[in-house]
Amino acid sequence: MKAVGVVVEYNPFHNGHFYHVSQSKDRSNADVVIAVMSGNFLQRGEPAVIDKWHRTKMALKNGVDIVIELPYAFCTGHATFFAEGAIQLLEAIGCTNFAFGSEEGTIHPFLNTFTLLKSHEEQYNALIKQYVSTGISYPQSLFKAYEELRQKEQGHTIDLSKPNNILGYHYIEAAKRLNLNIEPMTIPRIQAGFHDDINTESTIASATGIRKAIFEQQSLEEIVQFVPDETYMLLEEWQNKYISFIQWETFWPYLRFAILRHTPEQLTRFADVSEGIEFALSKAAKKSNSFNQFMTLIKSKRYTWTRLQRMLTHIFTGITKEQLHNSSKLSYIRLLGMTKNGQAYLSKHKKQFPLPLISRVASTNDPMLLLDIRATDMYALGVEMASGELIAGDYQTPPIRL
Amino acid sequence: MKAVGVVVEYNPFHNGHFYHVSQSKDRSNADVVIAVMSGNFLQRGEPAVIDKWHRTKMALKNGVDIVIELPYAFCTGHATFFAEGAIQLLEAIGCTNFAFGSEEGTIHPFLNTFTLLKSHEEQYNALIKQYVSTGISYPQSLFKAYEELRQKEQGHTIDLSKPNNILGYHYIEAAKRLNLNIEPMTIPRIQAGFHDDINTESTIASATGIRKAIFEQQSLEEIVQFVPDETYMLLEEWQNKYISFIQWETFWPYLRFAILRHTPEQLTRFADVSEGIEFALSKAAKKSNSFNQFMTLIKSKRYTWTRLQRMLTHIFTGITKEQLHNSSKLSYIRLLGMTKNGQAYLSKHKKQFPLPLISRVASTNDPMLLLDIRATDMYALGVEMASGELIAGDYQTPPIRL
Repeated sequence: MKAVGVVVEYNPFHNGHFYHVSQSKDRSNADVVIAVMSGNFLQRGEPAVIDKWHRTKMALKNGVDIVIELPYAFCTGHATFFAEGAIQLLEAIGCTNFAFGSEEGTIHPFLNTFTLLKSHEEQYNALIKQYVSTGISYPQSLFKAYEELRQKEQGHTIDLSKPNNILGYHYIEAAKRLNLNIEPMTIPRIQAGFHDDINTESTIASATGIRKAIFEQQSLEEIVQFVPDETYMLLEEWQNKYISFIQWETFWPYLRFAILRHTPEQLTRFADVSEGIEFALSKAAKKSNSFNQFMTLIKSKRYTWTRLQRMLTHIFTGITKEQLHNSSKLSYIRLLGMTKNGQAYLSKHKKQFPLPLISRVASTNDPMLLLDIRATDMYALGVEMASGELIAGDYQTPPIRL
Repeated sequence: MKAVGVVVEYNPFHNGHFYHVSQSKDRSNADVVIAVMSGNFLQRGEPAVIDKWHRTKMALKNGVDIVIELPYAFCTGHATFFAEGAIQLLEAIGCTNFAFGSEEGTIHPFLNTFTLLKSHEEQYNALIKQYVSTGISYPQSLFKAYEELRQKEQGHTIDLSKPNNILGYHYIEAAKRLNLNIEPMTIPRIQAGFHDDINTESTIASATGIRKAIFEQQSLEEIVQFVPDETYMLLEEWQNKYISFIQWETFWPYLRFAILRHTPEQLTRFADVSEGIEFALSKAAKKSNSFNQFMTLIKSKRYTWTRLQRMLTHIFTGITKEQLHNSSKLSYIRLLGMTKNGQAYLSKHKKQFPLPLISRVASTNDPMLLLDIRATDMYALGVEMASGELIAGDYQTPPIRL
């Protein structure tokens, strides 16, 4: 059986995702679609609006056959590392292709960009250095250096100011760097931009727009046209049980408690907390009554919102630099759910997987898996605090079967 | 002006305390009564039912002239260390006497016991060792060894099975060991035993009985006859503002979060967490939905309830073995409140104090004071979680003046 892989967060699953899944399957002629999905904490350093089990169900009801979890170490990492973990997992589970959505929409410009940057690596790095030295931020310097190189190139290359082009490039770069066999494909994104508000004349909105509508309107009616029925029902189910959708604001009392329980010096033990910021974190946490107020106090030119949120994720989960450092090697495939079709694929192919397929965890010493368990536990405590309802135990429950 | 010192927790202040304060003043012919009081965490490893500011007011309205804070490092320590901190502070603030309540009621038997144990130190230690080797617990072995020595003694010695006699003995022992000039006195305790339930035919009940009535009845009516009017009013004020009186159960969500945010190995960094118990703590915290359930799971013959609660206090406040170790030297007198009379005493004598008198804290590097600030912050977060109401900032507010 042929499998195509997708890298997703589904926060939450919407019509654009549905389009991407069906296109990926059709264009690759695959029998199954396998999604590698972030767990309860996401790449932008945020807790997911609903937990990974609900998001897995959304996926399985809408064309995905197998959902596996991207370990915490990768899904809270920077783009290069995130991509490395995701693409390695898709290769390990036997996908012949992976398909990402992009503004560009065709694959050759991505490959041209890769060739351009690899063949001019020294020049590229020198240009970046030069821009940084003029006081421009690192991401901006990268972009300017790339634009300068690009002008000299004959072939069509991608626009790296577009967020989905950037993500896609990281996937391709990871696959090439790690010498993987998995082949990249891209599906053009339709309509919604990355940061758009929802547009009532369309049926496509970005996940960002959908989350904004959920949190600002406190009602699901606004989003009904942008999500499949099953997403709507699962969001409703969550809301009935856990009262609020999850955002940093929901977890703020615990996050503040976690920050203030340590001296600034002790805070630097946690992953991504870089020297200097710890004093600002302590000071701001004492003064703030909300996450938003806190972020306003610690935000500065030096740190992007995402970078700050990632530090806060690690402080919240209590995960240290040492723990993260010891968890850089992928050692398992964690199964979150499967359809009958997915199950048939796994039965047929799992003996060839180079990594063990984990359905349930009794006890483990795997440092990477221990981080996943920790992150899940802390997310569950946060949800419980907000709702009084306990989330079903994670590593004792079997994968979802549809 | 002559000052007599008392060592207190006032959790909460009741008629028995009132009797003790007035007797201490009368019998010592003192002009002022100075109380050294535990802050928000107490010797049995529990948060106080109401914060130290309310307890300070109760004291000042009922005969105490000056309240100073026993630093966190001492008030969460074992009896020897607790006594050492308290008696040193009373000497430092110029008290000529300290007066403790006891079942014994006169001071000579205490001094006889001290002489007996010091003059038979080797024999005493050998007896303890012998009893321990038969499998009897350490406190029980102490008691049996003492009883054996005591039978050979002519003079009247104290009964060390009585909790207030034990405390008093520790104060005397600390004063002698540290060569302090302060003189011990004792006031006989009236009626209520240490662990009694309240008795409606009396006006005296123990603080334990009063707390039990408060928590079990969820109403203050039950205790009206056992506390001065001002205590009643201040308890009512607290209840109106913060909804619940504080016990471990109130702080349970934060305590559980604090435990689960660390690996068992990391938990051993916190003060008093002795090797071995960390695995039980992690396991039990995962399973428990209440503090009581948690304690039932971790309680064993090896650990007393008090010892477990002290560990949990340090985990809750995030205070490590290293931090506590670096905070063993008394370096300040922290003033919580004073009457006019108390103020007159301080104006007259403070220049002779060997330690600085602290009213407000701007910023500090004193390791012991940093622990007090931390403990206060964490207590305040716990109260805020339960009530939605912030406790007034501690180290920015001036002492209470009545």
